[in-house]
Amino acid sequence: MLFDFEFYNPTKVFFGKNAMNNLGTELDKYGKNILLVYGKSAIKKIGLYDEVVKVLNDCNKNVVELGGIKPNPTYAQVMQGAELVRQHGIDLILAVGGGSVIDCAKAISVSAYCKQDAWQKYWVDFKPVDNKIVPVASILTMVGTGSEMNAGSVITNEETMIKEGRVFSPEVNPVFSILNPEFTYTVPKLQMVSGIYDIISHLCEQYFSGTDDCTSDYLLEAIMNSVIFSTRAALINPENYEARSNIMWSATVALNKITGVSKEHDWMVHGIEHQIGAYTDCPHGVGLAIVSIPYYRHIYKYGLPKFVRFAKNVWSVEGKGRTDEEVALEGIARLEAFIKEIGIPLSLRKIGATEDMLPKIANSIAPGGHYKRVECDEILQILRECY
Amino acid sequence: MLFDFEFYNPTKVFFGKNAMNNLGTELDKYGKNILLVYGKSAIKKIGLYDEVVKVLNDCNKNVVELGGIKPNPTYAQVMQGAELVRQHGIDLILAVGGGSVIDCAKAISVSAYCKQDAWQKYWVDFKPVDNKIVPVASILTMVGTGSEMNAGSVITNEETMIKEGRVFSPEVNPVFSILNPEFTYTVPKLQMVSGIYDIISHLCEQYFSGTDDCTSDYLLEAIMNSVIFSTRAALINPENYEARSNIMWSATVALNKITGVSKEHDWMVHGIEHQIGAYTDCPHGVGLAIVSIPYYRHIYKYGLPKFVRFAKNVWSVEGKGRTDEEVALEGIARLEAFIKEIGIPLSLRKIGATEDMLPKIANSIAPGGHYKRVECDEILQILRECY
Repeated sequence: MLFDFEFYNPTKVFFGKNAMNNLGTELDKYGKNILLVYGKSAIKKIGLYDEVVKVLNDCNKNVVELGGIKPNPTYAQVMQGAELVRQHGIDLILAVGGGSVIDCAKAISVSAYCKQDAWQKYWVDFKPVDNKIVPVASILTMVGTGSEMNAGSVITNEETMIKEGRVFSPEVNPVFSILNPEFTYTVPKLQMVSGIYDIISHLCEQYFSGTDDCTSDYLLEAIMNSVIFSTRAALINPENYEARSNIMWSATVALNKITGVSKEHDWMVHGIEHQIGAYTDCPHGVGLAIVSIPYYRHIYKYGLPKFVRFAKNVWSVEGKGRTDEEVALEGIARLEAFIKEIGIPLSLRKIGATEDMLPKIANSIAPGGHYKRVECDEILQILRECY
Repeated sequence: MLFDFEFYNPTKVFFGKNAMNNLGTELDKYGKNILLVYGKSAIKKIGLYDEVVKVLNDCNKNVVELGGIKPNPTYAQVMQGAELVRQHGIDLILAVGGGSVIDCAKAISVSAYCKQDAWQKYWVDFKPVDNKIVPVASILTMVGTGSEMNAGSVITNEETMIKEGRVFSPEVNPVFSILNPEFTYTVPKLQMVSGIYDIISHLCEQYFSGTDDCTSDYLLEAIMNSVIFSTRAALINPENYEARSNIMWSATVALNKITGVSKEHDWMVHGIEHQIGAYTDCPHGVGLAIVSIPYYRHIYKYGLPKFVRFAKNVWSVEGKGRTDEEVALEGIARLEAFIKEIGIPLSLRKIGATEDMLPKIANSIAPGGHYKRVECDEILQILRECY
């Protein structure tokens, strides 16, 4: 069954080598007080920090800074930002960095004027936003999450050891996002491939569910094919603009809702990874890649036609003379080979997980899944298979 | 070379069987005076006219009507609507119908408060809109143009015999659009397949240009494949909701800008068809289908790799043992066979063109094209080949 849906995505994207030229004009549309949110040293190394600060000064903005946002941004950092927003009457939160920084900026936006505990309200009870929000804008330097054109925000609560993702209504989307593929040239290789697998996982989470012929599935396959092709080119030459551009835009489109309408999604790989991330602080995409393979081997029989389609349309697996099961498994094996090819270690141990963590991780995850409901004991089994 | 681009599409889409339930809530956001624009009798036959009027009354709106919009909407009708907007202080133009009706509504929107001759300013000189515009919303009943989620407006000037398309800035997009695939069940077959070829042509116009590996090309192929599959299903059973839903959403996505960023487009088939339409008043998609085949046979050698890719990725043409030329021509032949299969007559004569029209049509078209610049004498040759 195809579902009714609403599609509304009001983010204005400026994409390309000269995208930064639009920053001043856009900033002029907002008030004077800017909260500049960023991560560690990366944006300073590539000179982007100086460039942004210069534009902010040229626009006569009052700038308050919140640097040092972690790769898995914490609720404590969100609260710190929320305090700054209230204290300085912030008019616009400008996030410069990857998905973590933008996710954190959105969390600050919805939390600053929230009268209750924002964690409980938005990431536990999943309530709609009914308080004032502060506009967020972004300048993207790392690719993967799609946060630059959606209302998602994944935050880690270090007290409760829960990493939780939340998709808000489109009003929380960045009002504008600046995407220059050249900013991604210097991202270290592990971060780069982690982001790339994050894209692929977003596509798979939307794809491996549902039984209809749905336009969204065609779009998802298209972006998978584009990302796989461009990733190989970008690994040969990280400054291949064409490849980097395709990867960057694919990441945005993969999670700006256009590829996922009408159909069921799965999101169990993300559900499992979030708890691996909460325990190990591993790069998100690396955790996703590790879990994907045993997870898909665990569920493929229950969504066999889609896994066959995946093998044929994404990995060009020949169907002749083989059973559907063989074709489906060959598709998963090709995905596994691709993950190894791009250099992601397929082991929880290698990213710092210890054996005693596995039951804790498994028990902290809500059972779910669309082709097959996966219970905690099965999640534990999956974790053991990739340990 | 991939281009820098800006992507911004603020249309809110409500899609599905219950999409109409959102009409009242959305209407409440606008003022009391509504201009209701529609075509001939179709919306009355399916009961949609009564349904819309009931919601408008329930919302206490003052409704002014402009019915009878032609399939190729005329500038005279635009002027008539513009007069109504000024006279009644219209707050929202609600277009109920297919692309022609929505295009006309947008044209009224930008023309009502235009101090110069709007035709000259917007469809001849292609000036940006600098006067007040009136918000447009749409309820879609026919599929093809994508007008429900873009700022395009194709208008025919009957005095000068020019049919000209214009894409305005995103502020002219419908503020919301209601898409219920069930509304398309009763569209007569020729209109239905005309709309379907309009979708395919939009995809081809974006696809057959450029030489890069570009994510947009993957997306374009994806929608082509989805439309071809669903068209066959919908022709067997016009009330196949899954198929009708895929076709409807594909049409929207095919021209809401998401599939065409970063790359060159062609649009010569549309350029040629517009003048065929101006002279014969044929259904737009039928004119496009007729011209496409000789046009692509005329230019394929100049964009051979893309035509080979089209043959392989859209029509599953095997490459083994054949030259690229043979593969490319086989792809065009498969497109031609598909057009015949869905019942579009591939002849200008059959849609009312006369031989003496051909030079007039050819000479009224601006030369252009991306893989190959096509001059007026070549256009005449192309027209003769499909006469």
